[in-house]
Amino acid sequence: MARSAANPAVQADGSGAQSRVRDLEPLFAPKSIAVIGASRTPGTVGSAIPSNLILGGYTGVVYPVNPKAKSIMGARCVPSISAIDDHVDLAVIILPAPAVEKAVLEAADHGTKHLVIISAGFKEVGEEGAQRERRIKAIADERGLSIIGPNCLGVINTAPDVRMNASFGRDMPRPGRIGLISQSGALCTALLDYAKGHHLGFSRFISFGNKCDVTEVDLLRCLASDRNTDIIMMYVEDISDGQAFVNAAYEITHGSNPKPILAIKTGRTPQGAAAAASHTGSMAGSDEVYDAIMTQAGVIRVESVEDLFDLAEIFSDPVMPAGRRTAIITNAGGPGIMATDACIRYGLQLSKFADYTIKSLKFQMPPTSSLKNPVDVIGDARHDRYRAALDAIAADENVDNIMVLVTPQSMTPDAEIGQVVGEAKGFCTKPIVACMMGAADVAEGVEKLHSYKVPTYPFPENAMRALAAKARFAEWTRTPHSRFVQYDADKAAVEKLLEEEFKAGRKQIVELKALEVFRHYGFSLVPYALAKTADEAVAAAAKIGYPVVMKISGPKILHKTDVGGVKLNLRDEASVRAAFDGMIASVKDKMGDDVEIWGVLIQKMLPPGKETILGMSRDERFGPLIMFGLGGIYTEALKDVSFRLAPIRENSAYVMVRSIRSYKLLEGVRGEPPSDVPAIADALCRLSQLVTEHPRIKELDINPLIVYPQGKGVVVADARIILSEK
Amino acid sequence: MARSAANPAVQADGSGAQSRVRDLEPLFAPKSIAVIGASRTPGTVGSAIPSNLILGGYTGVVYPVNPKAKSIMGARCVPSISAIDDHVDLAVIILPAPAVEKAVLEAADHGTKHLVIISAGFKEVGEEGAQRERRIKAIADERGLSIIGPNCLGVINTAPDVRMNASFGRDMPRPGRIGLISQSGALCTALLDYAKGHHLGFSRFISFGNKCDVTEVDLLRCLASDRNTDIIMMYVEDISDGQAFVNAAYEITHGSNPKPILAIKTGRTPQGAAAAASHTGSMAGSDEVYDAIMTQAGVIRVESVEDLFDLAEIFSDPVMPAGRRTAIITNAGGPGIMATDACIRYGLQLSKFADYTIKSLKFQMPPTSSLKNPVDVIGDARHDRYRAALDAIAADENVDNIMVLVTPQSMTPDAEIGQVVGEAKGFCTKPIVACMMGAADVAEGVEKLHSYKVPTYPFPENAMRALAAKARFAEWTRTPHSRFVQYDADKAAVEKLLEEEFKAGRKQIVELKALEVFRHYGFSLVPYALAKTADEAVAAAAKIGYPVVMKISGPKILHKTDVGGVKLNLRDEASVRAAFDGMIASVKDKMGDDVEIWGVLIQKMLPPGKETILGMSRDERFGPLIMFGLGGIYTEALKDVSFRLAPIRENSAYVMVRSIRSYKLLEGVRGEPPSDVPAIADALCRLSQLVTEHPRIKELDINPLIVYPQGKGVVVADARIILSEK
Repeated sequence: MARSAANPAVQADGSGAQSRVRDLEPLFAPKSIAVIGASRTPGTVGSAIPSNLILGGYTGVVYPVNPKAKSIMGARCVPSISAIDDHVDLAVIILPAPAVEKAVLEAADHGTKHLVIISAGFKEVGEEGAQRERRIKAIADERGLSIIGPNCLGVINTAPDVRMNASFGRDMPRPGRIGLISQSGALCTALLDYAKGHHLGFSRFISFGNKCDVTEVDLLRCLASDRNTDIIMMYVEDISDGQAFVNAAYEITHGSNPKPILAIKTGRTPQGAAAAASHTGSMAGSDEVYDAIMTQAGVIRVESVEDLFDLAEIFSDPVMPAGRRTAIITNAGGPGIMATDACIRYGLQLSKFADYTIKSLKFQMPPTSSLKNPVDVIGDARHDRYRAALDAIAADENVDNIMVLVTPQSMTPDAEIGQVVGEAKGFCTKPIVACMMGAADVAEGVEKLHSYKVPTYPFPENAMRALAAKARFAEWTRTPHSRFVQYDADKAAVEKLLEEEFKAGRKQIVELKALEVFRHYGFSLVPYALAKTADEAVAAAAKIGYPVVMKISGPKILHKTDVGGVKLNLRDEASVRAAFDGMIASVKDKMGDDVEIWGVLIQKMLPPGKETILGMSRDERFGPLIMFGLGGIYTEALKDVSFRLAPIRENSAYVMVRSIRSYKLLEGVRGEPPSDVPAIADALCRLSQLVTEHPRIKELDINPLIVYPQGKGVVVADARIILSEK
Repeated sequence: MARSAANPAVQADGSGAQSRVRDLEPLFAPKSIAVIGASRTPGTVGSAIPSNLILGGYTGVVYPVNPKAKSIMGARCVPSISAIDDHVDLAVIILPAPAVEKAVLEAADHGTKHLVIISAGFKEVGEEGAQRERRIKAIADERGLSIIGPNCLGVINTAPDVRMNASFGRDMPRPGRIGLISQSGALCTALLDYAKGHHLGFSRFISFGNKCDVTEVDLLRCLASDRNTDIIMMYVEDISDGQAFVNAAYEITHGSNPKPILAIKTGRTPQGAAAAASHTGSMAGSDEVYDAIMTQAGVIRVESVEDLFDLAEIFSDPVMPAGRRTAIITNAGGPGIMATDACIRYGLQLSKFADYTIKSLKFQMPPTSSLKNPVDVIGDARHDRYRAALDAIAADENVDNIMVLVTPQSMTPDAEIGQVVGEAKGFCTKPIVACMMGAADVAEGVEKLHSYKVPTYPFPENAMRALAAKARFAEWTRTPHSRFVQYDADKAAVEKLLEEEFKAGRKQIVELKALEVFRHYGFSLVPYALAKTADEAVAAAAKIGYPVVMKISGPKILHKTDVGGVKLNLRDEASVRAAFDGMIASVKDKMGDDVEIWGVLIQKMLPPGKETILGMSRDERFGPLIMFGLGGIYTEALKDVSFRLAPIRENSAYVMVRSIRSYKLLEGVRGEPPSDVPAIADALCRLSQLVTEHPRIKELDINPLIVYPQGKGVVVADARIILSEK
């Protein structure tokens, strides 16, 4: 089902194998729709869909398919799609599950390429349903169909030249700039109902259910190219193809016309994931993986429906902030402090006003006003005072965002203040958000703010959280397009080496071979040589420089220490010579005289540095997942690690390093110099290229990667590579 | 102003010096009120207060005081309070700030003991106002008055036998069970307005402004004893007396009739605190201190006004949960997963149903229903199916909480479902919360739920977060009343020692004396002895056992290592003898022959263990603040520490240890045995008693306290005590 997740055919430029980009436009702007399973019985889905199409003002022609009825909603019924003497752009199927396969085939025979299968009774009900679903997917692939569903609510397009409500939701949503895709149909109906109370409208709406064919990635691309959609909302329980999702979402959020993607991904917790499995029959990945994927792709992951609407409200205003510096205008001290707290908590900054702003405020505000940020216009402020404060602050070059806070006091003219803020929105090039605290007492003011399309919140915390998310997204869109670093690596040599190890049946590669793999990809390694005799060992040690470490090397010798095959800190020729002979003897003694020995690995003894761990584990659904953490207890006990899907961009490598909690230890504490973070990032990018180019590598640990102070680099001290069994 | 924070007179039982417990009942149920500064001018505060009193249905008599008007709202005016021929229980003062002092004196002369000063122009406007405020406080103390304010909105009591609205808020709140106290007046008006939309009512309402006399602690005690108040909401920007607050709040939340305290404490962040200072002229403590105080006192600290109302909603239902096991009933899979995620995220657990419950559900639900938790009654469920599910689950002994989730689907009868849930609330002994997702489509259902007083939320996340807070509070109230441990310590000896050090002008106490202090309080110390000669040193070492550590000791020798005064790991008599002579010579060489030397400290060389840090720093406002953390980078670089105000209860000591992020390292990782946490808790309690009994100690660090495996104890390895300069 996943089209490229575990697919080895990733391009050398790291962009990943592209999924087929589907043209779904005929599905959203069909000239003709057949409703297969349309019904005259009120209260049924078969009745709701033709009714929603016709009452919703659909601009095309509806063909109800029902062999028993003559007409539905005044439209003449046909007994089957084959009886329609017209090309059918879209077929909506509402039949019982066992009858769906035949209907799909008939639609395909009739030349219809786009289908929405509303019917339930597939993957979500067990193996029999899953088989049914696989057969339908096979037909889609063979006949080149695009199918949404099964087990979904339908699709809606509010564009005035289409006005298609091919869903069984209660009514047509208000037209607007939000495109919504959802794996859960019930949530869609709730979201549409909430939206009514939020003055928010939708462009397109797709409930995609079991996504047997068209996936969230196809739908994201479709909304990205829709000129009526500015904001994408999505609800997903699992992502079919992590790699494709990251690529598509990154393009959408970071392209020339970036659109924010607000996502609820449920099944965050182990228990939640179990519920997801029983609901959609799909296996959800672990939550860390999803967090990593979302961050990497620039997707804004939200925790709740409330956050979803709070963010939709702020992103509905197209003005993007230039930075995080925020000014607060308030008519009350306490709420001003609450807004200040929230400002800092969510990662914004309080603006420090320019002198000219303070002078201007001083001239116009009463003497007891606080002229620092937050500006307190005092409880008796009328709209003129808000206007003066807005004028002054809008012109301040130290201000990126403006929040206007109004508490209803005895004489507060909330409607007039709403008007003033709305007018300011007309001339101000900075985002303005408003918070009118209260309910009935500020209702008129809130109404006025909505009419001017000023993002408006009842609580200062929600307003600040939304503003902060917008500021972060603005920064994301401004981040230079970070490239995938492409190193000049000897891919063929590694391929050959892995092939040989695999053929020899060695699932875990011994250190000597692992070092070779890393050498071919330009990792910084501890200087080493393989010595077959004591004389060679002495010569190698002299060349490498004392002190040295010696380790036995042979194709089957995995636990070197246990057989006396490791000696540390050897400081002269005599010790090396003695160690060589002693080691060979010990290993033969423990493993038998016929044990195959390649020789003894002579390595430079490393000076101490900070220990870090770089790892990769290949996920069946998502592909290679790269991990970074500090060595020892930080990774093992405190689970303080960061993840990204490979291939990673250069920026992502830096973000991975910086986003562990114990990053401070790499910055240098107690007077230590900072560690060489660029060298770690370089190693992460090399690792990314290595595992992307060699799908045969199933798991990999560099443990430890020793990190030295800034400018002194990193060294792979030990590593483990495990090959796929396939 | 703070009555006992920095007050050394803390009782030996650790309960702290009690503030005078004020009887504020006459203030809240006065038979007569003088409104000094009443006015006929509409739109003024002087007009709003008599108007609110009279139109609000106040049951007593109102005396407007205004020398220029004949009557206000039909009530005859008097020129001054002295002209009233009646006892005046409460005087409300609305005069300009400079006139307030005289009015307070006149009221006192007239026998009035309770005053509310609405007027602004005091501490919040600078030094002149602060002086005015101090003079008024002096009058209050001298004449035994209780004063609320200045700079406040007033007070309200909705009790039917009082019905007093002595505030200038817009109108009388609906009567209810919430008592609200707030440092910000403007926030109060907003809160009252929000409350209208939330079906919530208030018992008492106090805006306490600058709290020159009556503080949040007095008001908490007052609401605690009010039989009309079940829930306390508070908004504070600073707490005047941390110790008194902890004691009062602990009694209220953990007594025989516990009441939840929901608190917004602003000025969380450095920037927020700065705004607080400019607003109320008060210095706010650091946020960690406030978090510690709130946790210690059982106060539920919330981040936002929204959370405040969400929690008020759930606590309005008096049914308390027996545990965290939660059942979810839903008519849609997706929202069920969202609720499950939230359940786990906020620390609740999913119930595992008993077999009889599953059997009962199987019998009554359609075959495609999920009978596991969450129970999916399927999208076409009508109220009868909800009723059957509720009946089965309410009887399950594995269920502590029930959440009913409803999404509006085409046939969902929301009003009937609301009715069924409301009826279930009548017989169910477990908390039930409802979440109807949507707005217009579920309005009738929500109304029905409100009418049955079922806590109801629009989003599943808010519902779960509220439920989780209630479950935690229920656990807190059930925790056995943990005592302050009282050790048999030699308080007098320590007092004498500290006195001597202080008199000798030694601000930092040398190690030998610090060890004596700890010995008197029964801390586990490394065995030590002071040797004055080499022979004594050898004898002491033999008695203590090799290997030993030797450290020079003298009243002025603070930096022992710098003067060659420390030798480690001495393993025999000869080394000890040589070290003794060498050390004396080296110290005299570096510090001069006349340096005072007490001798050489001989200590047992400690086996390695885990290093922890115990500390205390005395805060001017809050008293002794105790800190715990792991040694080295964990405390210094990662700031991973926990705080509590001393005196601490035994439970708190355990919670302190468990609440650091790196606690896992004490549980034992990589096959290590767990550390001796009870011994750490014991040391924390001893430290608590030491610093409580000796206010002369300003700062103290035990760094490190070496911790051994469970049962093997802890040892104070090094310590530093700094005395107060007073």
